[in-house]
Amino acid sequence: MTKTAAIIGGGVIGGGWAARFLLNGWNVMLYDPDPQAERKMAEVLANARHALPMLYDLAMPAEGTLLHAKTVADAVRDADFIVESVPERLDLKHKVYAQIEAAAKPETIIGSSTSGFKPSELQEGALRPDRILVTHPFNPVYLLPVIEVVPSPVNSDASVETAKAVLVSLGLHPLHVRAEIDAHIADRFLEAVWREALWLIKDGVATTQEIDDVIRYGFGLRWAQMGLFETYRIAGGEAGMRHFIEQFGPCLSWPWTKLMDVPELTDELIDQIADQSDAQSGSLSIRELERLRDNNLVAIMRALKGQNAAAGKLLNKHQAKMAAPVQAGAGPITVFRRIIPIDWTDYNGHMNESRYGQVFSDAADEIMKLVGADAEYIGSGMSYFTVDIRIRFLAEALAGDAVYVESRVLEGKGKKLRVYSEMFREDGTMLSSGEQLLIHVNLETRRACEPVDVVRDKVEALAAAHAALPRPEDAL
Amino acid sequence: MTKTAAIIGGGVIGGGWAARFLLNGWNVMLYDPDPQAERKMAEVLANARHALPMLYDLAMPAEGTLLHAKTVADAVRDADFIVESVPERLDLKHKVYAQIEAAAKPETIIGSSTSGFKPSELQEGALRPDRILVTHPFNPVYLLPVIEVVPSPVNSDASVETAKAVLVSLGLHPLHVRAEIDAHIADRFLEAVWREALWLIKDGVATTQEIDDVIRYGFGLRWAQMGLFETYRIAGGEAGMRHFIEQFGPCLSWPWTKLMDVPELTDELIDQIADQSDAQSGSLSIRELERLRDNNLVAIMRALKGQNAAAGKLLNKHQAKMAAPVQAGAGPITVFRRIIPIDWTDYNGHMNESRYGQVFSDAADEIMKLVGADAEYIGSGMSYFTVDIRIRFLAEALAGDAVYVESRVLEGKGKKLRVYSEMFREDGTMLSSGEQLLIHVNLETRRACEPVDVVRDKVEALAAAHAALPRPEDAL
Repeated sequence: MTKTAAIIGGGVIGGGWAARFLLNGWNVMLYDPDPQAERKMAEVLANARHALPMLYDLAMPAEGTLLHAKTVADAVRDADFIVESVPERLDLKHKVYAQIEAAAKPETIIGSSTSGFKPSELQEGALRPDRILVTHPFNPVYLLPVIEVVPSPVNSDASVETAKAVLVSLGLHPLHVRAEIDAHIADRFLEAVWREALWLIKDGVATTQEIDDVIRYGFGLRWAQMGLFETYRIAGGEAGMRHFIEQFGPCLSWPWTKLMDVPELTDELIDQIADQSDAQSGSLSIRELERLRDNNLVAIMRALKGQNAAAGKLLNKHQAKMAAPVQAGAGPITVFRRIIPIDWTDYNGHMNESRYGQVFSDAADEIMKLVGADAEYIGSGMSYFTVDIRIRFLAEALAGDAVYVESRVLEGKGKKLRVYSEMFREDGTMLSSGEQLLIHVNLETRRACEPVDVVRDKVEALAAAHAALPRPEDAL
Repeated sequence: MTKTAAIIGGGVIGGGWAARFLLNGWNVMLYDPDPQAERKMAEVLANARHALPMLYDLAMPAEGTLLHAKTVADAVRDADFIVESVPERLDLKHKVYAQIEAAAKPETIIGSSTSGFKPSELQEGALRPDRILVTHPFNPVYLLPVIEVVPSPVNSDASVETAKAVLVSLGLHPLHVRAEIDAHIADRFLEAVWREALWLIKDGVATTQEIDDVIRYGFGLRWAQMGLFETYRIAGGEAGMRHFIEQFGPCLSWPWTKLMDVPELTDELIDQIADQSDAQSGSLSIRELERLRDNNLVAIMRALKGQNAAAGKLLNKHQAKMAAPVQAGAGPITVFRRIIPIDWTDYNGHMNESRYGQVFSDAADEIMKLVGADAEYIGSGMSYFTVDIRIRFLAEALAGDAVYVESRVLEGKGKKLRVYSEMFREDGTMLSSGEQLLIHVNLETRRACEPVDVVRDKVEALAAAHAALPRPEDAL
């Protein structure tokens, strides 16, 4: 049966919670006294509907039903899980819990989104404190997987496990925080960075833009995949984590910060960190960790390249400077040389068959540029669309293989452009052939039309030149 | 003419520098007295050769030549750029600069990789202090694009611009740090986080694994694309950066850290931050920023999914729980339903043609699973490889479109499996058809062979059932 979540407070965080529940097939009862609550929730949900289902390569469950409740009691009465996302005032939270306890089923878990309060503070005065605990998510809640689950000594194991099971079913990764402290774990790091950033701005050392750049082009890329300790384990090199700490330990007491209450690096603390790091990553050698790190960084940076965002935008700029115009001669045209990247391989360890299509699609783009159907031409409202493609797979390619592609125009007349391409490994082994039929289109009407004269002339000239070549055996 | 870089010190950082120069077509003279220097450099270069060229969709320049110099003087004599990456001891650095100045061309820039020293400290005692400045990179130097360029008041604009031009030509993003402070900018953040992490471990609140998880599943993903201030600008919502600071300002004085020397949030400081944030991101509305953020997060998380690493591993686990086995009935088989993700679209804004191939490749995988050629079967040493595919493109698909694929077996006999699939938008519009010929192979010999009986029987049964369907008009 479809389950129901009650969300009390529909701001950025509460709205994100509601969206994650809905898109995972739960019904949601939302209570928020803000007269703008429905509009705000609709906006968060629109964002979540755009983004969350894209993460999966299959359809998510049918979306649940969202209802706006008029009172806390209406929202929580039949709820199977309750989320409290009201502003960070303890008295307000206590008042809300009292309203919840008066109406909800007695066993339903209440998870609080609080960033700062400890669960024992939240539980003060509750009838059933065992069912209240911290479930602290990260914005955007519908995308980021981590959630801090913080119980107090009052919470039973059963309550904690019930909460974690619900969170896991929503695609979240519960991080069970074993000790209550102010701000839990993650926000302590965020505060530390925030304080340091405020000093740098106040002292005129850096601007917000510069601080963001040093993060997103630097350690932010590292932290998207390995975090702090595994990254430093690698930096320690063959000598390992203990070496890293001993080498960089002294910096702790250097004047690198205004915030100077520093833990003493006793042997005991060094042992503790080194042992934990071994337990975490010790099954892999530093070389293996480096390879994993680099593959992840390449995949992330290429993903950003596809979006032309952050570090990916820098890569696109640098790549544009490396590009040389394609030269057409008497024979087939070498349209590009490249390396097979790690994100093009699949579970077999070889280049996924769809990426052969990518190579031939890119080859056709180069032919288009060569005949004048370039970015400017497309901007003017005309382009070529591929109507069909036939690919023959002759040999496997692996990540890191250097390849090149030779293309020719088999047919070029009026609206039609037929491109035949062959992909070779640098050693001359033929990996694949592809034949594409492209049709010239008007981008406004999305219908076929004649190219402008200069493009048509260039297409026909290429076709005439290539007609002199022996016809490929496998051409259609 | 090919340029030459001299690298003094070939550790993890110096080696990374050398690799970045070499792969961007420079020759490199490396000096490092460590008897293991050649082996270590070879290992770093192997990593860099694997990873850096994958970032680009065209071939990088021909790799330069690496020579190991016997003395500092030999290394720097003809150098066009000099990098100092020796251990962090000021006396040692001064000694190295004296050796460099005695042998190098007088105008050649010396960039120091120092994390902690200020350029004016490095310049003490130099003959030509103007040519010494900080160029602080991030590990791995051959992948991460940011580099802190820190001059002292002694450095001329010309020296700084010369250094920046070289760094840009290597695909780096020079962040010009306008004020000298200990540890520049980034390492102050890293130290702040490191100190807080040491306290959390010492106090038994979290382990290295838990700290890494909260980073890589949480704010690390945010910071890989937007950094601190743009992220918080979004969190501030419609009310903007000023609202965010005012709302979260009070936390600064809460007991969320052991490190409590906190800048006062004066009106002046709030203005400064809000103005800088406007200059950085003010051209986009919060809704636009949210959409960019979410698209970047989706692309990054899908990239990690492809590597089955970090947050991507969590996604794969959650996805596996959502998967339902494909049901074969009398008609074509609905092999999956899914959403077109943002990383499948190209500069036209619609799904790249190669991704149609991805869809049909995934469809064939589902048919393989259905006939028993699943992961376990592949693990046993047999599989099907695609020999050729023909795709017809009928209509465009956009990111966010819900689609489904219907597949059937056109031919299934012995080693041959011919799969015909149609992709539809959820409204029933047909987007594409694909026909694939797969051949059963022995994964050890990489040659065709007969499938095991149970697979062959299932293939033949499907082919027989589908023979009763009207033949698709465009089948080969």
